[in-house]
This record gives sequence, C-alpha cells and structure tokens, in this order.
Amino acid sequence: MVDEPLVHFRWPVRVYWEDTDAGGVVFYANYLKFFERARTEWLRSLGPAQEGMRRAGQGMFVVSETRMRYLRPARLDDELTVTVCLTEKGRASLTLVQQCWRAGTLLVEGDIRIGWVVPQADDALRPARMPAEVLAALPVHTDAAQS
Amino acid sequence: MVDEPLVHFRWPVRVYWEDTDAGGVVFYANYLKFFERARTEWLRSLGPAQEGMRRAGQGMFVVSETRMRYLRPARLDDELTVTVCLTEKGRASLTLVQQCWRAGTLLVEGDIRIGWVVPQADDALRPARMPAEVLAALPVHTDAAQS
Amino acid sequence: MVDEPLVHFRWPVRVYWEDTDAGGVVFYANYLKFFERARTEWLRSLGPAQEGMRRAGQGMFVVSETRMRYLRPARLDDELTVTVCLTEKGRASLTLVQQCWRAGTLLVEGDIRIGWVVPQADDALRPARMPAEVLAALPVHTDAAQS
Amino acid sequence: MVDEPLVHFRWPVRVYWEDTDAGGVVFYANYLKFFERARTEWLRSLGPAQEGMRRAGQGMFVVSETRMRYLRPARLDDELTVTVCLTEKGRASLTLVQQCWRAGTLLVEGDIRIGWVVPQADDALRPARMPAEVLAALPVHTDAAQS
Repeated sequence: MVDEPLVHFRWPVRVYWEDTDAGGVVFYANYLKFFERARTEWLRSLGPAQEGMRRAGQGMFVVSETRMRYLRPARLDDELTVTVCLTEKGRASLTLVQQCWRAGTLLVEGDIRIGWVVPQADDALRPARMPAEVLAALPVHTDAAQS
Repeated sequence: MVDEPLVHFRWPVRVYWEDTDAGGVVFYANYLKFFERARTEWLRSLGPAQEGMRRAGQGMFVVSETRMRYLRPARLDDELTVTVCLTEKGRASLTLVQQCWRAGTLLVEGDIRIGWVVPQADDALRPARMPAEVLAALPVHTDAAQS
Repeated sequence: MVDEPLVHFRWPVRVYWEDTDAGGVVFYANYLKFFERARTEWLRSLGPAQEGMRRAGQGMFVVSETRMRYLRPARLDDELTVTVCLTEKGRASLTLVQQCWRAGTLLVEGDIRIGWVVPQADDALRPARMPAEVLAALPVHTDAAQS
Repeated sequence: MVDEPLVHFRWPVRVYWEDTDAGGVVFYANYLKFFERARTEWLRSLGPAQEGMRRAGQGMFVVSETRMRYLRPARLDDELTVTVCLTEKGRASLTLVQQCWRAGTLLVEGDIRIGWVVPQADDALRPARMPAEVLAALPVHTDAAQS
C-alpha cells in the first residue's frame, strides 16, 4: 500500500439532505452512490464507447466486491472529492481504490472490484472478457504496475 | 371529501436509518417510497396477473401525478401504517388516496394518480386502456361511487 | 399560470444508476431529491446566513406540500436542468414552481410549499415567521407580483 | 470459515421499485440498507435498552468497515432473507457476517464491523467501550467461540 495512491480521476460531491441520516451524518450506504458516480464519470471521460455498448446490450461493468473503511463522517453541506485509482487491470475485471476526502481529510476509503458482464436472453448477467476498445481506453500505468 | 375514507388496503412500514435525514425525521421523498410499497402490495393482493403482464411487456402502472401534504414528521423506529383507497377508476388511470399514520395520528396524506402504460419498441411508455383482467380485479366500490 | 414562468435559479443534475429503477427510468420519488438539491443551492446562492441559522437551531425550511406532474421519464445518463421559481412569498411560508427539463423538453413539474420551522426542546418543529434576514434575501418580484 | 455459519437472526426483505436500478437488479448500495435493517431488528430483539441509550445520547453503534461480495443479483419482487451472525465480540466493536438469500441461493455476503460511539458536545462521535448492558445482551457463543 502506498501513502499517496496514483489518482486517475477526481469528482466533486456535495452532501444534500437526501444523503444524511438521523445521526446527522452521511448514511454509510450512500458513499457507494458517491463512488459509483465517480466511476461513471471516470469511464465517461475515457470515451463514450461504453455507453453505446451498454445500450446495445454488448456488456457493462457490475460491482463484484467492495471493501469500505469508514474513518470519519461527512455531514450536510460538506463539499467532498471522490477519487478513482485503477490498481489492477485484468481481462475480465478491474480493481479500483476509491477515496472520499473533505479538503485534506480522508473520510472513507474503498477497494472496489468491477467485472464485465454481458446480459443474456434470460436476463442473467454472464461474466466475459472486456471488449478490446474498453481495455484500450483504460490507463496503462497502475499502482501495481509501478511497484 | 369524506372524513373517514374507505380504506382498501393497509401496509405496515418501519422507519430505518436509511429513511431519515439530518433533521432527525423521515426525508420527504421517502414517503413516496412507503406509498409505492403499499400500492405494490395492494396490487399484488388483487391477483398475480399484473406481475406476469409487466414481465411479458403487456403494460404496467406508472405514476402521473402526486399531491402530498406533510402534516407531522415520522422519526427513526416509528411503526407506521400506510393506507390505500381507490377513489376514481377510469379506463386508463386510477386515483388513490394514500395516508401514512402513526397509531391514531395522520402524518402524511397524498392523492396519487397512476396510469396504465405499454412499453414501446423504442423504450417509450405509451398510455393505454387497462386490460380487462386488471379492471376486473379492482374493487367495485370507491368513495366516488358511494357519494 | 404563465407559459414561461420567471426562473430564479437553475441547477444541473446528471442521472446516475442510483436514480433509476427497473423500469429503466428515474424513480418517481427521486425527482423530489433533484428538486431539493436545486432549492438548497438556490437558498445557498441567496446568502450563507441560513446555514448558520439552522446550525444554531434558529430555524429552517421544511416542505409542507408538494404537487408533482410526471410528463415524460428521464433515463440513465440524462443531463437535466432543475429550475426554481418563487411564486408566493408569505411571512411564514413560500410557494415555488420547480421544473425538470432535458434540453427543451419538460419532464416533471411541481408546486412546492415550504414553511419556516423552529426546532423545540422536545424535538418538535414549530412553524414560525421567517427571520427578517431570510425574508430580505428572497427575490422581490414573483410571478404573483407580476400578474 | 464454516460452510454454515451460526445464524443469530433472520429478517425478511421484499424488493420494491425503489431498490432496483436500470439494470433490472437491486442497486449494489441497497444491500447495505437491507443489512442495516436486519442489524437494527436483531439489536431490537436483544432488548429495548439500546434505543433508550441512543436517544439519551449515551451511545450507539456505527459501521466502521464493510466487506461485501456480490454473487448473484436480486430482482424486483424477490423475497429475500437477510441473516445476522455475530462472529467477533470485542469491548468496543463487533464483527458480523451477514448474508442475503433468495430461497436456497446466496446472493450477497458481507463482513460488517460496527463500533460503539458516544456523541460529543461538538457533534463528533468518540469510540468507546460498550456499556455493560449492551455487552450482556449479546449472544454468548459466536463462530469464533465454537471453532
């Protein structure tokens, strides 16, 4: 683990009433929404091809595993930054480190594994190799590659 | 308007952390979730045919209009009862009065209009007459019929 | 009702997975989240005083009534604009017209009534007159004033 | 790891529209809502003392870490069972294994770590030892104790 992971993408998130709970802090499940927004915007930034593929039924990413560490709570009106760092690039799945910061304070950190799946006729989602254009659009260098 | 509307269905709802906001009360949008759960269970109680129709692409209900009055807040752990009362039965749409109670106290009240739609090839939702079996499954007597 | 209501504020909203449902469209309750975000940003744009007042327990706005008309569905990845128009300004409550647009197409429209409340020692929310600095920060001209 | 973890509690969850996304399946963050509901009901089943303690500001559990494995998707109308198994009991934190089943099929599994915190005057949440009555109410035997 490196102290300063390579960050491939940053996305701002503002905390609204909808995100908080009666404890006065952001409900723990909602950081997964923030992380998903940042991943979506990161993938969008890599090229619009994936949107078209999903709509054409050629496949999409789904989350297969998450590991979240909740260090400090975010509160109403906080301005957060969510980061995306690609740390492992396989043929069928990716591992990302995502972090949620408020200014210089790390609030929540997660390891997120996403896999490529192709919808089947019976609505099942079959794991599959990523299409070449998806693989080609991803960053070349990852933390793993650097170490 | 009658003081005691005819209630066709009741559904219990418990308030969890996910439903509340930093004000310590249920977030206003979440009562629409509670109302939707009660409508779903009411429709399910009228017969499984609708589930099959939706899955077969023959149509489903969508909400076209809501009018909500927020009288008193619900809080964490509250045990609520959500009611459904069919007040108008058209060929293509229904009007329901739904209420959210905590014991004998009315917290939130809504008029909800739902219409039957059929998904089109281009993903649009076309309004349509309800199938005969849906119409037949609905209660015969409504407030309107009684007055 | 005027065709082109005076718009006091616009706020962009992107549709993410979290906002959609199995019908492929934005879940009806989630437009209330979008509307709340736009109201919050509108109030923030009028001055930071209200944030301080809420945190100091001096009061805040809560929603007392909504009337929503769902005209056309929004879908994943849509870029929406949510508007805020103040149409009635009372001593203790405001009425807003809010709309959700995708480019030139109106998708959802709502009349939202919000009232000023002051938290009590027993956690109840007592309706109260808006503080002078809140009233003073609001736009002078509304649709009602214009007609 | 044992094949059949000791289950201390089971809670039924029905999948509604609010839980699903445009992929036709339950949105990944929402399983954390299901897990939280089951934990809340499990704690409630152990005695009402904790509710009173939270309301009196004496402390409550917050989630410090989650590890989730998404094996198969749940869909609209599914009837799920969420389990709670206490696997580690410390003085200040607990580790639970929670699973989400549809009939005999395991869909999602998580390791959840919750810690006792006491709200401070400045709204911070200070980690603290669990009160004796909370510790006493927890099950004596855990998987760890059995192995």
